[in-house]
Amino acid sequence: MMAAQTQDFDVVVIGGGPGGYVAALRAAQLGLRTALVERESLGGICLNWGCIPTKALLHAADTLRRIRHAGALGITVSAPEVDFGKLVARSRQVSQRLNRGVAHLLGKAGVGVFMGTASIPAAGQVRVAGAQGRPQLLRAARTIVATGARARELPMLPFDGDRVWSYRDALSARSLPRSLAVVGAGAIGMEFASFYAALGTEVTVVEAAPRVLPASDEEVSAFVQQAMARDGVRFLVGARLQQGQVRADGVHLTVEQGGAAQQLQAERVLVAVGLAGNVDGLGLERTRVAVEQGLIRVADWGATAEPGIHAIGDVTGAPMLAHKASHEAIACVEHIAGLRQGAQHRAPIPACVYGHPQSAGVGLTEAQARQRGGEVRVGRFPLEGNGKAIAIDEAAGFVKTVFDAATGELLGAHLVGPEATELVHGYTLAATLETTEAELMETVFPHPTLSEAMHEAVLAAYGRALHI
Amino acid sequence: MMAAQTQDFDVVVIGGGPGGYVAALRAAQLGLRTALVERESLGGICLNWGCIPTKALLHAADTLRRIRHAGALGITVSAPEVDFGKLVARSRQVSQRLNRGVAHLLGKAGVGVFMGTASIPAAGQVRVAGAQGRPQLLRAARTIVATGARARELPMLPFDGDRVWSYRDALSARSLPRSLAVVGAGAIGMEFASFYAALGTEVTVVEAAPRVLPASDEEVSAFVQQAMARDGVRFLVGARLQQGQVRADGVHLTVEQGGAAQQLQAERVLVAVGLAGNVDGLGLERTRVAVEQGLIRVADWGATAEPGIHAIGDVTGAPMLAHKASHEAIACVEHIAGLRQGAQHRAPIPACVYGHPQSAGVGLTEAQARQRGGEVRVGRFPLEGNGKAIAIDEAAGFVKTVFDAATGELLGAHLVGPEATELVHGYTLAATLETTEAELMETVFPHPTLSEAMHEAVLAAYGRALHI
Repeated sequence: MMAAQTQDFDVVVIGGGPGGYVAALRAAQLGLRTALVERESLGGICLNWGCIPTKALLHAADTLRRIRHAGALGITVSAPEVDFGKLVARSRQVSQRLNRGVAHLLGKAGVGVFMGTASIPAAGQVRVAGAQGRPQLLRAARTIVATGARARELPMLPFDGDRVWSYRDALSARSLPRSLAVVGAGAIGMEFASFYAALGTEVTVVEAAPRVLPASDEEVSAFVQQAMARDGVRFLVGARLQQGQVRADGVHLTVEQGGAAQQLQAERVLVAVGLAGNVDGLGLERTRVAVEQGLIRVADWGATAEPGIHAIGDVTGAPMLAHKASHEAIACVEHIAGLRQGAQHRAPIPACVYGHPQSAGVGLTEAQARQRGGEVRVGRFPLEGNGKAIAIDEAAGFVKTVFDAATGELLGAHLVGPEATELVHGYTLAATLETTEAELMETVFPHPTLSEAMHEAVLAAYGRALHI
Repeated sequence: MMAAQTQDFDVVVIGGGPGGYVAALRAAQLGLRTALVERESLGGICLNWGCIPTKALLHAADTLRRIRHAGALGITVSAPEVDFGKLVARSRQVSQRLNRGVAHLLGKAGVGVFMGTASIPAAGQVRVAGAQGRPQLLRAARTIVATGARARELPMLPFDGDRVWSYRDALSARSLPRSLAVVGAGAIGMEFASFYAALGTEVTVVEAAPRVLPASDEEVSAFVQQAMARDGVRFLVGARLQQGQVRADGVHLTVEQGGAAQQLQAERVLVAVGLAGNVDGLGLERTRVAVEQGLIRVADWGATAEPGIHAIGDVTGAPMLAHKASHEAIACVEHIAGLRQGAQHRAPIPACVYGHPQSAGVGLTEAQARQRGGEVRVGRFPLEGNGKAIAIDEAAGFVKTVFDAATGELLGAHLVGPEATELVHGYTLAATLETTEAELMETVFPHPTLSEAMHEAVLAAYGRALHI
């Protein structure tokens, strides 16, 4: 074994996903000598195998829908033909472009980027073994673990990259499957179900929980399931996968639903049953960092039980979302730099699903709000009452607000329909500012926009909606 | 002349546009006996000849762009053929659907709707002459004038519905013109220029001001003009129309630009040089209501100089925007009902342009902010740095913020690019709440969305942007 080269840093970040690279950029902005270690691709899962390439694919699916609907607008066009290989290749190119963008940003900021596998020989050190010649030893005043998470495997159906897909395989398939079973109706499963169904694949979604998108508002779940079912997706909810077998003719699943067993067969199966934190091989056992159920336990500012080692993002637990990770990155680094002290303020974290229909929400679902006691006021506004939605022929959807009846505080807000994922930032801002219903009502939303439905859903909670 | 039938109301609203019908709906919600008088179509210009039908047309233009760009995504489709008649007919149907919707809402709310021409014989009375049999005399404890505005005519080029178009003609053309001159590069002119250019019409825009969209931020104007020029629209800015003549072969215009005269010829010309308030024939001269330059002068809560007569919306002046009118409607009615007193709070009014590219803004432009003195901080973020914009292949555009350097108050915010008109509500909310840069920075914007560029444009004002 070669002697390691040693370098000193103020901050060493392990993991180049959105949490990691944002931490490194912010640390460098603040004048800290910063290194980042990434074992595979800068940008992490999000940029390379998650958020970004799926949006490229879903944009293509959306374009297909627009083309198929063009006749209703007075536009005649032939039936679209999809070059699946080109479509997937474009999505990969988008990831590569952004990946290069992150490398450029890190370089410009003066972050030392080490491609290789990190481990922690002892607190205050990060060892990098990789393709860049002899191992590096980075001495780190502060280490930030941002190693992210990976797809959980089902023991009965291990990923094989062929018949049994992880999201990664679903993003780089070589051909369009005739049929696809999706196990797990969280955001990832639902986005792929939506994409493949739009391209003509026969899709069946199996979900153990009693509803799809179990983390979303209850009405949002119901609406999305109905809409996707109308688009041809088959759903088995409250359904447990009992057996899974890969045979020459495809994947055979046995699913128990309502006490009865059903057989399912599909060309491929996408297993999207959640994510597991990347903690193995880091050598955390040589530190005081506490790991529980594959996740690093953290206190405010990402502090672990080992002074000098912080952790942020997916590896610290749910919600496993890129914007949560990058938000935690900023907070953690600014704390390290001494800009923030005291208790960490927890900002509301929005969540988005980019299938068709889109959905998004922030704060409590209606059921969560009711469970916490106290009276709630709920406002609903259907997009059928929104002029823009009618003008663009996308009036399927609704907006829903949940207020604390006593204080007028916005507890939660939920949207389904066109651009829901772009609209939710407004409610997120409102929730962050602890805005009341009175202030939201006073805000002038531009006409004609979908965003007006957000105003109406506030008015509706107080019996003052105008267009229903 | 038949004797008029007399009825008593708490509130009589003259004009059924967004200001008028919202005033009537809110008044009825508050238990006031309410009448509304409309001479042509419920929903007014906005719903019938403005905001709404243009959005239907622009959606079709956007669909055309998506189809033409589909090849880049891996989708093969024939060159689209446009059935112009069907496209226009759909836009008219959208207006009719919403028009019926407003009638339904007013009926459900118990508002007495009188179709006919209103006049004010004396304060406290509204006379309706129209197709519904003998004239009606409505006794009105409060009258709200919401008669809106109409296209201003150029004396040298009076509207003829054939060669010389108002927006109304541009919305209901029987055939696609081969060439179109657009006089006036405000929102209306630019939206039609964008629409007709997308359909293949050769479009020339003539604007007297030194830049297009003179009410928008200066950089927004420049960007939009460049982008539309790349799409084939010809622009003559700082250009005065000196002569206009309708001849058998089309419209001939003489335009002076930079001291030189140019000749222009086009199949049709759209005159979009502003709007004039609808005050004629109302009999306002029999009241103390002050009219100046065709606009009703109002104080807080839409009060005129005549007690009991209020005015709201376009007839009271710029900005002539539907959402300003409906906001004033609510304020006026709630004041009448005794719910609001004191000085009227002036909420920030966003403004949107729905051409391609879309643009939107709220608050001060950079130049306006600098003119008011005091140091300003400006943040800019290009969509080339936004992952979602790259994933959907629409990375042309930017977001710009203008802050008061001393207080951190958001003075203005401006966007160009996809969904700019849907995004601006977030900044509008921030401006309404007098949010500071610190609070905006603390807000977690969902990833991957265009709205993240709004966050970055805030960070950029303080040298903290991450993705540039």
